Amino acid sequence: MTTPHEYAQANAERFREQYKELIRIPSISTLPDHAPDVQRAAEWLAEHMRQAGFETAEIIKMPEGRHPLVLGQWNGAGPDAPTVLLYCHYDVQPAVVEDGWVTPPFEPTEKGERLYARGAVDSKLHVMSQLKACESLLQTGGSPVNLKLILEGEEESGSENINAFVDAHGDRLRADYCAISDGTILDPAQPSLVYALRGIIAMELHVSGPAQDLHSGHYGGSVHNPIQALAEIIAQLHDANGTVTVPGFYDAVIAADADERAQLAKANEWTEREWQRVAHAPQPWGEAEYNIHERVGLRPTLELNGITGGFTGPGFKTVLPQKAMAKISCRLVADQDPDEIFDLIQTYLAQITPPTVRSELIKMEPGAKAAVLGHTSRAMQAAARAYEQGWGARPIFERAGGSIPITYTFQKVADEVVIMGFGYKSGQAHGPNENIYLHSLHRGIDTAIYFLQEVGAQ
Amino acid sequence: MTTPHEYAQANAERFREQYKELIRIPSISTLPDHAPDVQRAAEWLAEHMRQAGFETAEIIKMPEGRHPLVLGQWNGAGPDAPTVLLYCHYDVQPAVVEDGWVTPPFEPTEKGERLYARGAVDSKLHVMSQLKACESLLQTGGSPVNLKLILEGEEESGSENINAFVDAHGDRLRADYCAISDGTILDPAQPSLVYALRGIIAMELHVSGPAQDLHSGHYGGSVHNPIQALAEIIAQLHDANGTVTVPGFYDAVIAADADERAQLAKANEWTEREWQRVAHAPQPWGEAEYNIHERVGLRPTLELNGITGGFTGPGFKTVLPQKAMAKISCRLVADQDPDEIFDLIQTYLAQITPPTVRSELIKMEPGAKAAVLGHTSRAMQAAARAYEQGWGARPIFERAGGSIPITYTFQKVADEVVIMGFGYKSGQAHGPNENIYLHSLHRGIDTAIYFLQEVGAQ
Repeated sequence: MTTPHEYAQANAERFREQYKELIRIPSISTLPDHAPDVQRAAEWLAEHMRQAGFETAEIIKMPEGRHPLVLGQWNGAGPDAPTVLLYCHYDVQPAVVEDGWVTPPFEPTEKGERLYARGAVDSKLHVMSQLKACESLLQTGGSPVNLKLILEGEEESGSENINAFVDAHGDRLRADYCAISDGTILDPAQPSLVYALRGIIAMELHVSGPAQDLHSGHYGGSVHNPIQALAEIIAQLHDANGTVTVPGFYDAVIAADADERAQLAKANEWTEREWQRVAHAPQPWGEAEYNIHERVGLRPTLELNGITGGFTGPGFKTVLPQKAMAKISCRLVADQDPDEIFDLIQTYLAQITPPTVRSELIKMEPGAKAAVLGHTSRAMQAAARAYEQGWGARPIFERAGGSIPITYTFQKVADEVVIMGFGYKSGQAHGPNENIYLHSLHRGIDTAIYFLQEVGAQ
Repeated sequence: MTTPHEYAQANAERFREQYKELIRIPSISTLPDHAPDVQRAAEWLAEHMRQAGFETAEIIKMPEGRHPLVLGQWNGAGPDAPTVLLYCHYDVQPAVVEDGWVTPPFEPTEKGERLYARGAVDSKLHVMSQLKACESLLQTGGSPVNLKLILEGEEESGSENINAFVDAHGDRLRADYCAISDGTILDPAQPSLVYALRGIIAMELHVSGPAQDLHSGHYGGSVHNPIQALAEIIAQLHDANGTVTVPGFYDAVIAADADERAQLAKANEWTEREWQRVAHAPQPWGEAEYNIHERVGLRPTLELNGITGGFTGPGFKTVLPQKAMAKISCRLVADQDPDEIFDLIQTYLAQITPPTVRSELIKMEPGAKAAVLGHTSRAMQAAARAYEQGWGARPIFERAGGSIPITYTFQKVADEVVIMGFGYKSGQAHGPNENIYLHSLHRGIDTAIYFLQEVGAQ
């Protein structure tokens, strides 16, 4: 009998062509003109789910002007077998040749070991890896686990609806294990598994002084300039070590033990190389007692995302402005609570705002707690073995500095969640000339098959 | 025989109507569509100079697209009499009803004691005061001094050409005394004479860190955020007292003696009221050892005119930006040199820029030294007596915080320069509902006549 891996190998050429077919549908969710393309991609995917062997493949409409979910289900493993929820997104970022594309962005182009196209890595690589892993199992005797494959069509335009859908229809998505398939591994030769993501809270800090914009000649020297006052406030938010000075900021932070830090030391080798390649600032910055991987993954931050005040056009204008504003966000780690952190910052700002100006801190969105998946769960261990077999190397466990809000959502419907990325950081997701190594698709399919087999065998 | 003052009084009604006639010409120099109006105003003025008794009245063309000077001359006082150069500008700021005008901006409207119109105070009040003072003298036996009345048509749009004209044709404008007639006095009941203006040097401070904009999740905590670094640098430019910390910044500053500070204490009474009315910040700010008038007039400043970096639109974007920029200007007092001050700041910034970022300071324009006219010159004393007689109160001497670059230019062609303003700070120059008290025009004419008589009698 043919094994799923043999099936995948025998059908590799067809899988690759179908991957290209999906890429050619410009399913750009951020541009209303492309709504029909997103719809077309959803229909293509539902049809291919059915062909793959899913029992049902449903296009779930979202509110007018938004983009559908596609949900495929297969319950052939029976009520005693575990259920696995697989998530990917099939929408893509916009792309035009003028952004610096060497080849047409929606015509997948092979060059040497790579394939170039918008969506190549983010995230049609993942969509096709999971879909074809399911097909390979379903066409060779069935899957050892029940399957729910959910594909989102608006991840690149705010994921407005999926969280509400999961909250309202949690029973339909209930699973023992969930794999969010998106993102990157450390290096083509070194797979990795993210077991922690930072949370976030975003805010605006407004500082105002005089009743109106003033002439800097007529009032300069007698009024605390709001830009200067804002700068003076910002300068008090970190100490010389880069540690956040807001009292209580670190109180809820769970420290890493020696074992975990030893793990992170391995991941840091790649992180440092990546830092030099991408960030390439004159020197690294931040808390000296943590390596770069830890500063980004293990430690919370208080970051300035924007600042504006006064006249910023060409030339100069001798204005002493009425106000200035900074956009601030904190990346949070477990167990920091977004609302508590906001309150701590607000209290501290009230203390350090001088009597010569007024300040106001505004919360931008509800914020999100850090998601900790743990590197010892059954799902995570199954994923590690899957990469070892499918990718060819034991993965390193890493902490990610970013936030994937859907993680938190899926933790509500699945007992254990893992994140399985097959991209590389050089894949230029969101940028021009987005690309994958062609082997990624086939390694991705293999790894995804092994994951389903591993969780099925437990 | 009729005195000039009697003539002015007898013709008050006509002068006021002619002032309104000039206001009705919307001589907006900043809007190319209004170039014909500026030209029409110039022609109106040349014609009225001739009618007033000037021997010559010349429209001096400026480069294509720019606006003419009008120069009237009368040399009837003879070669032994002093020559007085009078300067005003006849162009105005734009004005549209939508900005909040209660009456049509170019239809002068009397309401109670006031007259509302664009240009009412800035600066057709001054143009007509000087022109009608000259007429009153020339039509009643002649002026005791030779007269050169120069009117500029692009003061509101950068004064691009007058400085070059003065430099190239200094001989034509050579004078013993020069009165720049523009600006405001402390209060309708308290005239004042500005005897010092601050200079200026403007610059941009650029701070950059990483090679590109970064994702604040993926790199936050490991890269010195350029907005934060810029804020930390700005926060080191003043101490807690508001004193500039740049080494050497105050080395060239000439201290005021006790007499001068006693004068300034008088002016400060009005300055403090004005500060509360216009600036109205939660508290005054600045060097505790100086009063508000001194902080603005006697002391140099380092002011933030603008700041920008990262994402500043609605919502938030989790960017860790590549760079940030601040616009900075220094108001200078005698004897600070703009280039030296720039160099001092540049040196200091190089010292305090941390090794985690790069900084660059860029000079925006050549800058200008402070203009010190002195309050003891013959011209200034003549102006003081003129206000006392024409306005009805002995003026207070004051220092102005702003810069009038033309002052420095006229110091090259005239032995002594004074600034004679007839406006009030509540006159809303540049704003909607610009206005004067109607008595200002007649007091202005009288004061201008007295000034010419006083310098003629010396």
